[in-house]
Amino acid sequence: MQLAESTLQKALKAASHVNGERLWSRHMEMARIGATARGGVNRQAFSAEDISARKLLATWAKARGYRLYSDALENLFIRRDGQDANAAPVVTGSHLDSQPQGGKFDGTFGVLAGIEALEAMEMARLITPRPIEVVAWSNEEGSRYAPGAMGSMAFAGQFDVVQNLTIKDREGHTLGAALKAVRSEMPQASLRPLGFPIAAYIEAHIEQGPILEANGCQIGIVTGIQGARWFNVNVIGEAAHAGTTPAKNRKDAMQAAIAIIGRLNERMSDSADLVRFTVGRFDVLPNSPNTIADRVSFSIDFRHPDPEQFERLSGEILRLCQDAQDTCEVRVAETLNKPPIAFPANVVNSVANAAERLGYRHMHLSSGAFHDALFINDMCPTGMIFVPCEKGISHNEAENAKAEDLEAGTKVLTAALVEAAYR
Amino acid sequence: MQLAESTLQKALKAASHVNGERLWSRHMEMARIGATARGGVNRQAFSAEDISARKLLATWAKARGYRLYSDALENLFIRRDGQDANAAPVVTGSHLDSQPQGGKFDGTFGVLAGIEALEAMEMARLITPRPIEVVAWSNEEGSRYAPGAMGSMAFAGQFDVVQNLTIKDREGHTLGAALKAVRSEMPQASLRPLGFPIAAYIEAHIEQGPILEANGCQIGIVTGIQGARWFNVNVIGEAAHAGTTPAKNRKDAMQAAIAIIGRLNERMSDSADLVRFTVGRFDVLPNSPNTIADRVSFSIDFRHPDPEQFERLSGEILRLCQDAQDTCEVRVAETLNKPPIAFPANVVNSVANAAERLGYRHMHLSSGAFHDALFINDMCPTGMIFVPCEKGISHNEAENAKAEDLEAGTKVLTAALVEAAYR
Repeated sequence: MQLAESTLQKALKAASHVNGERLWSRHMEMARIGATARGGVNRQAFSAEDISARKLLATWAKARGYRLYSDALENLFIRRDGQDANAAPVVTGSHLDSQPQGGKFDGTFGVLAGIEALEAMEMARLITPRPIEVVAWSNEEGSRYAPGAMGSMAFAGQFDVVQNLTIKDREGHTLGAALKAVRSEMPQASLRPLGFPIAAYIEAHIEQGPILEANGCQIGIVTGIQGARWFNVNVIGEAAHAGTTPAKNRKDAMQAAIAIIGRLNERMSDSADLVRFTVGRFDVLPNSPNTIADRVSFSIDFRHPDPEQFERLSGEILRLCQDAQDTCEVRVAETLNKPPIAFPANVVNSVANAAERLGYRHMHLSSGAFHDALFINDMCPTGMIFVPCEKGISHNEAENAKAEDLEAGTKVLTAALVEAAYR
Repeated sequence: MQLAESTLQKALKAASHVNGERLWSRHMEMARIGATARGGVNRQAFSAEDISARKLLATWAKARGYRLYSDALENLFIRRDGQDANAAPVVTGSHLDSQPQGGKFDGTFGVLAGIEALEAMEMARLITPRPIEVVAWSNEEGSRYAPGAMGSMAFAGQFDVVQNLTIKDREGHTLGAALKAVRSEMPQASLRPLGFPIAAYIEAHIEQGPILEANGCQIGIVTGIQGARWFNVNVIGEAAHAGTTPAKNRKDAMQAAIAIIGRLNERMSDSADLVRFTVGRFDVLPNSPNTIADRVSFSIDFRHPDPEQFERLSGEILRLCQDAQDTCEVRVAETLNKPPIAFPANVVNSVANAAERLGYRHMHLSSGAFHDALFINDMCPTGMIFVPCEKGISHNEAENAKAEDLEAGTKVLTAALVEAAYR
């Protein structure tokens, strides 16, 4: 459906009311909750800090008279009504929880950009046909309770809340008790079912990678989220004396593992630099300088944005490891297989159009990291907007972003939300 | 000096009196001290078990009226007098201490073979010109107090006992207190200075490697001890997100370390299978599947029997690591450099001659592991005799050896000791 030029004008007008100073000061205010000594935040899911962050968000919503809703997983929604009370809402947002040593912008930016978009619509005195809602998804990071993206997964019907109420954090607190704690502190939020119909979902986020910065772009038009396939490889050799055992008698798990990784590296060689191949974990037994390694266990994290390449290359990894048995036994276990997703063209184009009209230097790119949008994409037309973060550093107290980039991203988000709310 | 045929006849006659059953039953009796559930022994240096082992050895010595001596490091000597009380003794022996999960034969065989050689000389009614002494060197394994081979090192003037009395084991017991405990339990041993003159030293030991077994030999004529050079390599990269960081932006310490080891493997390729190159320890930070490795630290254990090759190849390892700096920083530290030693031809030939005359299938080989003989070699003509152990397994509760091989090794030792005692 082609939108009328008048809708575009309304979208751009609303975007022009985004207040960059307010947006920044709200980031700084939110960053005081769970602030760490080295400039980051520790605001793990359903913690006292997470609850304080929800309350602060509710304060801003209440000042505008917006209603609050929550669901069985305590995803928190702020609703700005539209002309049609029965129309499915357009939703934006991200998450307020953080890594134990996380940054001020990961997730938080998407929620605060959403609230600022609503503020801008107020200033523009714009009532959209569809309602617009801002969501703070619960437990995106997964540091306290696995899996991550639990809130959006539960919303999309991919995580069963009732079956998992007894899972515990490191201190023995159950998920059920954690959810009750949030509920009792947020009585103003009305309970709603998980998975209600959504017209469109658009999430703003810092890139968490170096590509926008390297290309001098303020806006990333996210075309999709690359696929990820994870393996654990176990290599079983035989411990023996390093001084007395000839090479031909060795069953050296260390050398067998290194040979496998060497061969994988050759296959993963990619001049386009789209393959993300990482061996991040490598454990050795007995791990003694003068004993030949008995066992090595290592992880493979493979990602690719293209579905065909994803399938082909990750299949090659699996087969290469399965066929690697030589002097040592090799066992491979798949721990994750999430193929790439592509966001629908109309959402991608709407974001690109807004960035173009607003005059921001932008580029198309695929998301390297997972986001809540990965799961909501299964339910409705979904898109994402990236803004640069310094040196691509994230999941780190040193995470940083520029006020003008957050403002630019929020203006693009506002325009895209208005457009979607007229569809 | 060419020995008279009559000396050889005396040597072979004494050897014929070796009693394989007594030798085996003494091994089994000794193995009850510190016995572990899985058939090994835990008899760490200067422990109650080590003291019990010394006492059992002293019982056998006392039955023959041999005098006992000890020194500042509690090396325990058993002396069988010769015709010339002032002549430097011929010494044989090894150690009674074990790894925490050690075997019944490592070290123990050398001491019990020595005692059995003296028994055989008694049966042969042979009084040699030189005295013959059996030694149990203290703390060869080094598991409780580092370094290993502490007793023989101290004897050879390469370990300063007084300066090290305050070093502690894991439970906080000082070396000084441990030495005092041994002394107070062994009052029958007269104190002697470290490093007194020795005419020759011959040590019997299980091979701790698979070569004799693979070649169907009962006797290994040890030509020397291969050199060992150890390095620690530290690779310093930068932690980053595995999903979002392009290959060209990565400083991946894991991949840098693997590339270095791959290049070292190429250089260490050796058709003669004499090079012993082992990476046994490999530690990664943060060691997380979806984070690019920040730091890797790995060990190199290089050994070679040939002095020229040892120098050249270990130098190549050092230079290759030093020059490996690319995207990651590389730091190399040398932790051990002990060049190969060759035992003198007359001792090697004497052992070979005895094995030949006694009709045992034998071969020349270099020792892959360290032994007390490595340090005593600096003081006097030294040699070693190896017997096979099952599958080459040692430093393991599964360590095993055959009674007939221990008997064969003890007969060769007896003959070689008699010959040396006539020189």
